[in-house]
Amino acid sequence: MKTIRLLISCPDARGIIAAVTSFVAEHGGNVLDADQHSDKQHGEFFMRVEIDPAGFTLNPSNFESAWRPLADHYRMQWRVAWGDRPKRMAIFVSKAGHCLNDLLWRWKTGELAVDIPCVISNHDALRRDVESLGLTFHQLTITPANKRQQESETQQRLADAEIDFVVLARYMQILSPDFVAAMPNRIINIHHSFLPAFAGAKPYHQAYDRGVKIIGATSHYVTDQLDEGPIIAQETMQVNHRDTVDDLVRKGRDLERIVLARAVRHHVEDKILVSNNKTVVFD
Amino acid sequence: MKTIRLLISCPDARGIIAAVTSFVAEHGGNVLDADQHSDKQHGEFFMRVEIDPAGFTLNPSNFESAWRPLADHYRMQWRVAWGDRPKRMAIFVSKAGHCLNDLLWRWKTGELAVDIPCVISNHDALRRDVESLGLTFHQLTITPANKRQQESETQQRLADAEIDFVVLARYMQILSPDFVAAMPNRIINIHHSFLPAFAGAKPYHQAYDRGVKIIGATSHYVTDQLDEGPIIAQETMQVNHRDTVDDLVRKGRDLERIVLARAVRHHVEDKILVSNNKTVVFD
Amino acid sequence: MKTIRLLISCPDARGIIAAVTSFVAEHGGNVLDADQHSDKQHGEFFMRVEIDPAGFTLNPSNFESAWRPLADHYRMQWRVAWGDRPKRMAIFVSKAGHCLNDLLWRWKTGELAVDIPCVISNHDALRRDVESLGLTFHQLTITPANKRQQESETQQRLADAEIDFVVLARYMQILSPDFVAAMPNRIINIHHSFLPAFAGAKPYHQAYDRGVKIIGATSHYVTDQLDEGPIIAQETMQVNHRDTVDDLVRKGRDLERIVLARAVRHHVEDKILVSNNKTVVFD
Amino acid sequence: MKTIRLLISCPDARGIIAAVTSFVAEHGGNVLDADQHSDKQHGEFFMRVEIDPAGFTLNPSNFESAWRPLADHYRMQWRVAWGDRPKRMAIFVSKAGHCLNDLLWRWKTGELAVDIPCVISNHDALRRDVESLGLTFHQLTITPANKRQQESETQQRLADAEIDFVVLARYMQILSPDFVAAMPNRIINIHHSFLPAFAGAKPYHQAYDRGVKIIGATSHYVTDQLDEGPIIAQETMQVNHRDTVDDLVRKGRDLERIVLARAVRHHVEDKILVSNNKTVVFD
Repeated sequence: MKTIRLLISCPDARGIIAAVTSFVAEHGGNVLDADQHSDKQHGEFFMRVEIDPAGFTLNPSNFESAWRPLADHYRMQWRVAWGDRPKRMAIFVSKAGHCLNDLLWRWKTGELAVDIPCVISNHDALRRDVESLGLTFHQLTITPANKRQQESETQQRLADAEIDFVVLARYMQILSPDFVAAMPNRIINIHHSFLPAFAGAKPYHQAYDRGVKIIGATSHYVTDQLDEGPIIAQETMQVNHRDTVDDLVRKGRDLERIVLARAVRHHVEDKILVSNNKTVVFD
Repeated sequence: MKTIRLLISCPDARGIIAAVTSFVAEHGGNVLDADQHSDKQHGEFFMRVEIDPAGFTLNPSNFESAWRPLADHYRMQWRVAWGDRPKRMAIFVSKAGHCLNDLLWRWKTGELAVDIPCVISNHDALRRDVESLGLTFHQLTITPANKRQQESETQQRLADAEIDFVVLARYMQILSPDFVAAMPNRIINIHHSFLPAFAGAKPYHQAYDRGVKIIGATSHYVTDQLDEGPIIAQETMQVNHRDTVDDLVRKGRDLERIVLARAVRHHVEDKILVSNNKTVVFD
Repeated sequence: MKTIRLLISCPDARGIIAAVTSFVAEHGGNVLDADQHSDKQHGEFFMRVEIDPAGFTLNPSNFESAWRPLADHYRMQWRVAWGDRPKRMAIFVSKAGHCLNDLLWRWKTGELAVDIPCVISNHDALRRDVESLGLTFHQLTITPANKRQQESETQQRLADAEIDFVVLARYMQILSPDFVAAMPNRIINIHHSFLPAFAGAKPYHQAYDRGVKIIGATSHYVTDQLDEGPIIAQETMQVNHRDTVDDLVRKGRDLERIVLARAVRHHVEDKILVSNNKTVVFD
Repeated sequence: MKTIRLLISCPDARGIIAAVTSFVAEHGGNVLDADQHSDKQHGEFFMRVEIDPAGFTLNPSNFESAWRPLADHYRMQWRVAWGDRPKRMAIFVSKAGHCLNDLLWRWKTGELAVDIPCVISNHDALRRDVESLGLTFHQLTITPANKRQQESETQQRLADAEIDFVVLARYMQILSPDFVAAMPNRIINIHHSFLPAFAGAKPYHQAYDRGVKIIGATSHYVTDQLDEGPIIAQETMQVNHRDTVDDLVRKGRDLERIVLARAVRHHVEDKILVSNNKTVVFD
């Protein structure tokens, strides 16, 4: 079922829930789900309201004028996802295909309700995995010399394809600050460690050398601070001294697939709010 | 901080959240936390509202008359926990002390905000654990011949001590249907398996014989159907062929302590609603 | 690296490890890995020895005559996996493709070192998933009338393809006792619950109705007692009141894929011994 | 049952298992349990053999002369734990009592087979928890001025009490390199994060600020590199945006207790070997 999602953050105050839910009711809407969170430390309030479109008298053309007085009163930052079309997701990959294939499988079976206008890669390795499903694969090889230009090209293709958000499915290039700044909280990365441990390159090698008894994976929004963006989802598993680096890599692939899929799902369902470099995930 | 908790269940309908939160606001209350859940299968709506007592103009003597019209309109079942005094918890034990000691430790350190007017046991084994903390220990030995009479005696002592709820911390007696019926959703048990697997006696032996690779623990409200009451919390852990029954018992103790403490905490914080033999836990 | 695996079970006795490892050393073998387990309850000893083929002077034609005296002395049940060719795995499926696709992906990427001579299904739904990878798909539709005959046909095709073991990847038919008896501990099933809870049909519906706070998946060898064969691997995850049956089904798919893959991997690496309807998994 | 444990590490080579287990058999010993591990990266071999003392003809006075030729041949580092008396454990604490009380409870109930000659603290806060069980409590207040002297005093008391190993149960002082060097792999610490994440002070505050979705605890041997010693055990749990720092502290206590108890148990059962700042735990 398509639903309308209203996401709000504002300074905490009395009566917000009553005001928002009454607003919805006054315009014929039925609240299917409502979640709130008060961050006492920062005095900040977060809310997500899911509304049944049946009977709701507001639409993209008249919502803002009706809503603005209330939003201004509480100094809200807000957005509405009307749910009238699937979100459009681009996937960036390099050579490792496990996260890509997992996302494609979830898309193919309908578990992940998105459109995938294109997959973009700096290598050719995964072309067949993409094209065999009838999807578009852009290879944009990157060298130190052409990196800036290829990013522009990439941005153009995202614009052409009307992409809503990007998933870095083990994409081994670092995006420029400009690229990242243009898509705030709309680029999701999977890092193969339980961040903040083992940021940077080769986290499984780092984990092996440190002799940890757990490994993990972390999905986060990309910011211009490498591996330091707001964390969306994390998962860990036990390992032991018998596990070689190759074992960690193999076991970790299952973690990465599941953590990334979970984060993408939360994003697609508009369940994530970001503040102070942290996420509120209304799961 | 002491807070007022309002718990509601009713047939699902439009506008309930707005109605309830507006009611709170109209009486000077600030909603600190609100959780809702719609059970689509049964068309049932659940809500928990936590209210700051500061400024709230209603109190135990005048709340009901103000609230009843709204409650009747939506055909609500409801209750208010005013939070004006700690809940009064009785613990029933037999000989195994790990759950008892864990609860006492959480109480002693202030983690568990309850009063413990008495601990009741059909054995003498744990008397010292209780009395050394300055708490009251009642030994009520049970035989087939005196079971009915001892239950009456037990009920009298619970009444005298103004007990709000009972925790069966590995209590090895089966309570009579009358006893249970008198305290609906106010008796919490810990069962040492991941129910519904291994209901009944000696679940770790059953688990060992079946060769499972996980063990678990389950906390639930007691009903007159043994081990079939509404589940509040469950947890599992991996085991393997090297684990003997004794190992399962030992490892399981840690699960039991944590699961029971979690369930008791949810109960104490009025986070649990029960319907159709299932719980909604607003965690 | 290809290795030789020797698996032993026998009555527990002194000196077995010394005898076995000395035997290997006397024939030029290097023990790469050795695992033992003593089941005190049944007085039974289990051992797995992994041998480097380089320098080992025994081979399939002369091993038994050299080994038999020692094996007879300790009354061993034993087998050797020479590792000279990949195990040949058949996959049985019906309509649900998540476990199939996961196994195929692990095979395609080399994570799972098997050959897959055929996939057998009572439906046509997953033909394309199989054939697009260049694998053979046999559709053998089953009706009450032809079930016996189709099983014979299936057995013939397994024999023709020299299949070593069968994986039931959410196969919705119950195999006959004769079929099962012909492949003891060589048919692996995935059941979508934490057995022994919710055996039989529709376990996620059962779990939802019971209101459990965890769901699970179980991989086991198939015996003629439905859902009661020796358990190889199990995994669980937390769920809550917000999860509908559809959510449980969706979340469970990830558990099922991982648990089945783990069990298959253990089987392929000859890490499993079975006794008293339980497994010893030398993980 | 008391058992003899032989722990070995040496360069990997052919025939070690046969040599060691044959040696045990030749001296009338029965191997109850044997575990091995080959670290391919460093070419190192690790072994733990548990021997039934009944019938074993060697003892502390004659073992070494019999064993040395074999040990020298393979260039082994080795030690034997004869299991003839419980290990003697000192616990160091400051003000937080949850780990202390958990260890004391496991000791009192016989789960942890150690003697506890003394508990040492730089504060007086936990005296009653210790003395009420009839155990000795030494308060050794530490100031910058007396730290060196108090460490000498502490060492003297450990020597007087014939302490085998020390557990830092949330002890808030940093031990000097000399102190640590005198007890290599015999001081166990619990750190309240999933190291290497959030080393140093106030890890739960760090975790909260970073917005992680998991918290953890790590038990490790103490070296002169703070929080960087060999990891023995780790565990994690899911948290979310609703968890305040206080919630993390509370939830983390349960993790810390369980992880520390697990590490102590492994140490007491002589299941841990250390090499290259990593542990092999024969669990």
